[in-house]
Amino acid sequence: MRIDTLPTPSALIDVPRMQRNIERMQQRLDALGVRFRPHVKTTKCEPVVRAQLAAGARGITVSTLKEAEQFFAQGIDDIVYAVGMVPGKLPQALALIRRGCDLKLVADSLVSAKAIAAFGREQGLSFEVWVEIDVDGHRSGLAPADERLIEVGRALVEGGMKLGGVLAHAGSSYDYHRHEDLVRIAEQERAGAVLAAERLRAAGLPCPVVSIGSTPTALSAERLEGVTEVRAGVYVMFDLVMHNVGVCGTDEIALSVLTTVIGHQEEKGWAIVDAGWMAMSRDRGTQRQTRDFGYGLVCAEDGSVLDGYLLGSANQEHGILQRVGEPDREIATRLPIGTRLRILPNHACATGAQHPEYQAIAADGSVQTWPRFYGW
Amino acid sequence: MRIDTLPTPSALIDVPRMQRNIERMQQRLDALGVRFRPHVKTTKCEPVVRAQLAAGARGITVSTLKEAEQFFAQGIDDIVYAVGMVPGKLPQALALIRRGCDLKLVADSLVSAKAIAAFGREQGLSFEVWVEIDVDGHRSGLAPADERLIEVGRALVEGGMKLGGVLAHAGSSYDYHRHEDLVRIAEQERAGAVLAAERLRAAGLPCPVVSIGSTPTALSAERLEGVTEVRAGVYVMFDLVMHNVGVCGTDEIALSVLTTVIGHQEEKGWAIVDAGWMAMSRDRGTQRQTRDFGYGLVCAEDGSVLDGYLLGSANQEHGILQRVGEPDREIATRLPIGTRLRILPNHACATGAQHPEYQAIAADGSVQTWPRFYGW
Repeated sequence: MRIDTLPTPSALIDVPRMQRNIERMQQRLDALGVRFRPHVKTTKCEPVVRAQLAAGARGITVSTLKEAEQFFAQGIDDIVYAVGMVPGKLPQALALIRRGCDLKLVADSLVSAKAIAAFGREQGLSFEVWVEIDVDGHRSGLAPADERLIEVGRALVEGGMKLGGVLAHAGSSYDYHRHEDLVRIAEQERAGAVLAAERLRAAGLPCPVVSIGSTPTALSAERLEGVTEVRAGVYVMFDLVMHNVGVCGTDEIALSVLTTVIGHQEEKGWAIVDAGWMAMSRDRGTQRQTRDFGYGLVCAEDGSVLDGYLLGSANQEHGILQRVGEPDREIATRLPIGTRLRILPNHACATGAQHPEYQAIAADGSVQTWPRFYGW
Repeated sequence: MRIDTLPTPSALIDVPRMQRNIERMQQRLDALGVRFRPHVKTTKCEPVVRAQLAAGARGITVSTLKEAEQFFAQGIDDIVYAVGMVPGKLPQALALIRRGCDLKLVADSLVSAKAIAAFGREQGLSFEVWVEIDVDGHRSGLAPADERLIEVGRALVEGGMKLGGVLAHAGSSYDYHRHEDLVRIAEQERAGAVLAAERLRAAGLPCPVVSIGSTPTALSAERLEGVTEVRAGVYVMFDLVMHNVGVCGTDEIALSVLTTVIGHQEEKGWAIVDAGWMAMSRDRGTQRQTRDFGYGLVCAEDGSVLDGYLLGSANQEHGILQRVGEPDREIATRLPIGTRLRILPNHACATGAQHPEYQAIAADGSVQTWPRFYGW
C-alpha cells in the first residue's frame, strides 16, 4: 500500500518525523538526567508506544483505566494512571494489579486517600499512590505549600498504602509562546513538585518519585534538580497548537489527515474536502493563540505546506478549505475535484481520537496500518 | 444493569425522550404529507435507526460509505449518501450497489457528474444521482437558478445515469433562534429546491425526488408543497445547540454523559469530573449562540437540571464544573467526591462519536447497551 491508494479521510503518521520527535525528547531528558514516562493518551497505539520505549522511555502514563488494561495486555506493566482516583474505579484498578500490573494511582484529597486506603485494607492490598500537586492553578492537585498535603500523605501511609511520590503537570504552559515564559513555567513546575516532595520527606513520609511534565515544559526546562521523571504526550506527533507555543516547526508535525477535494464554490474561493470535523475533531485550540489555523493547515499530498490555505470551517464530513485573506477564485483550477491533500491538525490527541487507525508512512513511502483504540 | 452501576464516563440515551422526539418529527412530516428519511450520522446506532424506521421513516441518509455499508448489512437498502461523490469512492459505492443496495449518490458539478457517468458506463451500471442544491450559501451545491444545473442534469442523463432528484440542506438554520426566522429559512430551503426541480423538468429532465431538510427547518416549515421527502438527524437526540436555536427544551434532550466527581478546587468553586473533552467532544457550538453552555449543562444523576452549573472547561479526561457567576465555594459539600452527574451536550452528533456505545435507559430504569461504530 502507498499513500496514493489510501482511502480518504485517513489519519497519517509520518514515521521519520515521529521518530525524530521521540529521539529529540529522549535525548533531552537523558541529558537532564531524568527518566522519561510518555503519556500514551495522545496515540493509544501500540507501535507508537513501542517506539517510545525502544528509544529509552521507562514506563507509561495513561489517562484511562482502559489504556492501562490495553497496554498491560501488550506487556507493559509500569503504568501511572494520572487522573484522580475515585472509589467507583478501585475494583477495576485492583483487578489489573492482581494480574501483575504495577499500576500507580493518583490522589489529591483526604477523601480519596482514605477511600483508597480503606478499600486496599479490605482487599489486603497496598496500593501505590502518588499525590497530585497543583503547580499553576491549572486543574487538579494540592498546592505545594498546602497543609493538607501532609495529611493526605499520612492518611495513605497510616492506612497501609505505599506513598510513591508526587506528580505535577503544568498544563498552563500551553498558554505561552515565548521561550523565556516556557523556561519560567518549567522551573515553576519543577520547584513546586520538589517543594511538595521535600515537605513530605520533612514530615517523615517517603517520596521517592518526583514526576512532572507537559510537552512545552519538558522541551524548555533548563534544570531538573530533584525531579526523578518527566511525562509528556503530544510531543510524539506535535501539532499546530504546539507550533504556536513555539516548541516545533510545522515540518516536525508527524500527524496529518489525508483528504480529497469533493467540490467547490468558486465565487467564494472555497474547495470542499471530505475531511470535516469528524476527521479533524472539533478542537479549535489555535483560536486564541497568536495564529488561528481554523481546523488545520493545508499541505499537498507529499506533505509540503500550501502556505496561506486553511481548513476554515468544518461540518461533520465536509471541510471548507480557503485561502487566508483574499479568496482564491481560481481554486477549482488550482485544486480540482479529486485532488488529495494533507491537513495538519490543531491538536494531535483530539484528531487521533477520531480515527480507528493510523496509516504509518515510512521513509520509503510504504504504508502500515497501526490500529488505535478508544472508549473507556 | 441500572444507571447507578454504570461506569463513568458513559453516553446515556433517555429512551422515552428519544421515542418522543422520533414521534414528534414523524407526526409533523406525516401531517405535511412528505416522506421522512432520517440522517443516521447522528447516532450510527442500529437500535436508534430501527426505532426511527418503526415510527414511519422511509430510507436513511448517510454521511459516509461506511454508514451505508453497516446499515445495508443490517438490512436497510434505501440509502442516500449525502456527500458529493468523487471518482476515488466510486468503486466502494459500486460494490454496495452490486450487492443489492439501492444507494443514491450526490453531485453538484459537471466534473463529478461526468466522472460518475464515465465510471458507470465502464461498469455497465446506471448510478442514481441526486443533484445538490445550495439554498443558503452554507456549503456545497449549485444555486437553484445556476445555469450549470441543467448541464449537470443533462450530463447524467445523456451519460446513461438515472437523475433521481435534487437534494438541499439549509445548514444556516443553525444560526437562528427566532421561530419567524426558522420559518423563513425553511421556506427558502423548500422554494430553492422546488425551483431547481422545476428548472430540470422544464429542460425535459426527470426530477422525481425533491429532498430537503435540517432539524430546525423540518420542525419549523409551515408548508412543503413540491417537496417529496425531508431529512434530519440531530432531532432524535436534540442537544444544547438545538435548545438555543429554539426547537427543543432541555427536558427533551435524550443524550447525556454520565460522570463522577473526582476532586475539587474549593477556593475556585470547581468540581473536577471524569468527563473531559474526550467524553463530551471538543464541540463548543453554543459559544456563539445566545447562551454559552461551555462544554455542557450539569444535571443530577436522575436527569434533573442543576440550573446554573456548567462544565466550564475541559481537558482530555478532566472536566471543570462550575457555577455561572459567583463561584460556589461549598461545591465540595454540595457535590462530594463520588457524586454522579449527567452532562447535557452541546452537539449530540459530536458527543456520540466519542463513545463506542450508548447506554440506553428505559422508562423502568433498566439499561441496555447499544453499540455504535465510527471511522470510514
